Amino acid sequence: MNEASPTLRAWVYWWLERPDRNADGPRLLEIALIALISLNVGAVILETVGPVYARWQFAFDLFERVSLLVFTAEYLARLWVAPENPEVQSRRKWASSPLAIVDLLAILPAVLGMLFPLDLRILRTLRMLRLLKLTRYSPALGMLLAVFEEEAGAFLAGFFILVLMLIFASSGAWLAEHEAQPEAFGSIPAAMWWAVATLTTVGYGDVTPVTVAGKIFGAIITIVGIGMAALPAGIIASGLNDQLHRRRASLEAQFRLALEDGA
Amino acid sequence: MNEASPTLRAWVYWWLERPDRNADGPRLLEIALIALISLNVGAVILETVGPVYARWQFAFDLFERVSLLVFTAEYLARLWVAPENPEVQSRRKWASSPLAIVDLLAILPAVLGMLFPLDLRILRTLRMLRLLKLTRYSPALGMLLAVFEEEAGAFLAGFFILVLMLIFASSGAWLAEHEAQPEAFGSIPAAMWWAVATLTTVGYGDVTPVTVAGKIFGAIITIVGIGMAALPAGIIASGLNDQLHRRRASLEAQFRLALEDGA
Amino acid sequence: MNEASPTLRAWVYWWLERPDRNADGPRLLEIALIALISLNVGAVILETVGPVYARWQFAFDLFERVSLLVFTAEYLARLWVAPENPEVQSRRKWASSPLAIVDLLAILPAVLGMLFPLDLRILRTLRMLRLLKLTRYSPALGMLLAVFEEEAGAFLAGFFILVLMLIFASSGAWLAEHEAQPEAFGSIPAAMWWAVATLTTVGYGDVTPVTVAGKIFGAIITIVGIGMAALPAGIIASGLNDQLHRRRASLEAQFRLALEDGA
Amino acid sequence: MNEASPTLRAWVYWWLERPDRNADGPRLLEIALIALISLNVGAVILETVGPVYARWQFAFDLFERVSLLVFTAEYLARLWVAPENPEVQSRRKWASSPLAIVDLLAILPAVLGMLFPLDLRILRTLRMLRLLKLTRYSPALGMLLAVFEEEAGAFLAGFFILVLMLIFASSGAWLAEHEAQPEAFGSIPAAMWWAVATLTTVGYGDVTPVTVAGKIFGAIITIVGIGMAALPAGIIASGLNDQLHRRRASLEAQFRLALEDGA
Repeated sequence: MNEASPTLRAWVYWWLERPDRNADGPRLLEIALIALISLNVGAVILETVGPVYARWQFAFDLFERVSLLVFTAEYLARLWVAPENPEVQSRRKWASSPLAIVDLLAILPAVLGMLFPLDLRILRTLRMLRLLKLTRYSPALGMLLAVFEEEAGAFLAGFFILVLMLIFASSGAWLAEHEAQPEAFGSIPAAMWWAVATLTTVGYGDVTPVTVAGKIFGAIITIVGIGMAALPAGIIASGLNDQLHRRRASLEAQFRLALEDGA
Repeated sequence: MNEASPTLRAWVYWWLERPDRNADGPRLLEIALIALISLNVGAVILETVGPVYARWQFAFDLFERVSLLVFTAEYLARLWVAPENPEVQSRRKWASSPLAIVDLLAILPAVLGMLFPLDLRILRTLRMLRLLKLTRYSPALGMLLAVFEEEAGAFLAGFFILVLMLIFASSGAWLAEHEAQPEAFGSIPAAMWWAVATLTTVGYGDVTPVTVAGKIFGAIITIVGIGMAALPAGIIASGLNDQLHRRRASLEAQFRLALEDGA
Repeated sequence: MNEASPTLRAWVYWWLERPDRNADGPRLLEIALIALISLNVGAVILETVGPVYARWQFAFDLFERVSLLVFTAEYLARLWVAPENPEVQSRRKWASSPLAIVDLLAILPAVLGMLFPLDLRILRTLRMLRLLKLTRYSPALGMLLAVFEEEAGAFLAGFFILVLMLIFASSGAWLAEHEAQPEAFGSIPAAMWWAVATLTTVGYGDVTPVTVAGKIFGAIITIVGIGMAALPAGIIASGLNDQLHRRRASLEAQFRLALEDGA
Repeated sequence: MNEASPTLRAWVYWWLERPDRNADGPRLLEIALIALISLNVGAVILETVGPVYARWQFAFDLFERVSLLVFTAEYLARLWVAPENPEVQSRRKWASSPLAIVDLLAILPAVLGMLFPLDLRILRTLRMLRLLKLTRYSPALGMLLAVFEEEAGAFLAGFFILVLMLIFASSGAWLAEHEAQPEAFGSIPAAMWWAVATLTTVGYGDVTPVTVAGKIFGAIITIVGIGMAALPAGIIASGLNDQLHRRRASLEAQFRLALEDGA
């Protein structure tokens, strides 16, 4: 593979990695790949519906084999053309990049499943990892990752407070309720299911305190705790909002510069 | 209709489209139309209450016929006077504007229901579309549409992340629970009902994980996911807030200009 | 009463309305009145607990009579001293102010209950209106009222959108579910209970869609709707936050001015 | 103890209180203490799981004794070295600081449990207070306390409004439902469990209004109330966000100053 003609490699690079954002052919190829990923996700979803899978099993299996072939070819091709990219250069560096690891995760479970006997249901669910291949094409996911990186400190602080609240809430609920409801509040880990549902305000209601002490503790912890529990969520949301407005502002600034250059 | 005297047409235009915002007559007509729309919505709501409809069927049916007549006359009149409006000019252009389409949707189902045998319940529910006629008179709805347009990019990004979270949450819940609860978690689409109720924090509790693996996965996905799921909602809310303050600021600026002109 | 010596009236005014914020006596009287209101609320709460009321009925009834006497005396005294207040002057003007109406509401039901035979439970609940007497002493409630006034436009817009969402959600749920669940979704008003619980994300789960169409509609309306439904709440919260920061800033500005004056 | 050589005391102070933030030894000791606290919390959680405790009772009890010894030694050592700290100086002043009280709370219940016969379950739960020892090492918790201090006024205002809403909601629900559901809505305190679950949007659904009046009142109070109830939570969240950004800005400013000094 290493001896391939540089012209062919440059041509594959031009098609796969879209260095020229205005070329029509590579854009169509990108759209086709996005469609294939989406269809794969749709197929995994539909395969879990018993009657649908029973009826179309052959088509589903064929589609999975074709998809696996395409994704494997894509991975090998991207690996092969990596040296063409001036920002990557070495194949090893490309293979250890997050996008390359996602590409590998999209084919590895199915390849391993051919070599070793693995549980089919877990294999099927792991095919859902192909969803992550969309990160390459989605600015939204890229932004989310940037927000996580930038607000990591705030996020960790919020998360730490949430864990403290969860431990505190489940300890108190266990103390108040473990005699009245040994099934649902028999241990602190068991009581944590109630604490998560309550502090996130999901509130399924499958498990609720029944003793007077448990209800009073539950009411206080709910009022105090939901503010704390909303912190990590609020930090991500406000960070993403900031990011979006900054990107828009920088796009507008570029656009204005371009206009002034043209004038 | 095209040969109607321009004077009559201008007079109808003056009454219907309120070019002169200070005239009292057209304002009363507008209030009457808003009242008629509200009464229509109220009638549809009350008709679904069995005993009420049985008792007052004749009145409800008469009111519907009169309303249909008024709304049809209104649509035809607006179509007829469209050329009077300097911003619209051609009737075709008016007929393809969003407000005109809403006006058409308010009468079309009932008209079609007279010509073809249609399910009466669906027809009744489609009369709810008359609610949208209020958009013409409501700055709030207009603002909401403006927000959707302006924040479309952010909104799509948030929505894309929400869909990914839903697919991921329902896949994991299906894997963990489909053996213990084949009814509620038998397929990924079925598990999505749980995922929507959880990630939006509605939490009905009609379907909850019961296995230890399902509860651990559910707790983690809830804590991680509710922040993501709140993104589209947060984007609309903050966008509408921005819009409201900008409008108020622009109104105040106009007011100040008017004061300075007067001075 | 009109002929009372102006010296006595000025003295009562000085005690009741606290024109001199630094005097100790009137401050203690104010604290006593706040305590009496709080005890009244506590008494109404405890009276509804059967065994507690049965055991202490005499004490509760005595306390209610004393409280009624004090509140009536307070009302009459405030009415009498109104002309002393340079901002109010006439008694009629004071009697039609919001604070005076709240004071009247705190005694009127009990006085009427003595003259006419009224349902005792409703009378007891109406005593809860005495809570509103705390508005006089609470800057928090005053601020909330100011926020409502200032953001009235935004608030109405948000509320209008919420009502539209509720009508739309309950119509769709009624159409999808009224055959499968004639009890819970038998009419649009009945379906509104589900719509309120869902769009506010409370999600009791006492009523949930069971048909496939109902679940799909419910999932979509939940994702789209919770953002809209949170608008009025978000507008109040952000308005109150603004108000709090503005008040703090104005207090700091006053403080700085005072410092500069002293320098 | 008072006669201990100042050199030894200074050496213990250097190890325990980390005056020199760059020294490696004290940092490792701090990490070991954090690990011990975390393991203690983990142990309390696991001890409540019946089979786990039955199997490893000896190890759990040994670990608790060792931990108690270490924490007692730590407390006495910190008390002993307090005069070394130029900001504290006297031992009495250190012993009354919040961090010292938390250190005492971490050992006191276990020490008392040795002297007097106390309920073992309550003792075990009180060991959870050791979690608070993490405050010393966590900037997140320190920030949260600073936010509470700074926004105390806003927080109290929001909390007062929340209490008013809870009292009002439970009074109305009691009036509407106490005859239909004497168990769940038999008194205002009982109805408060429903009010808390509703106004915080947790919505367990174990208790819901069933009468028409109760549902109408419940729907209105839910729509109006959830905005109010979210106030305290919103105030903490926005305060913490402010605090985080201010800290980051001050860190960046320090960093820039350091760079300029170096240049």
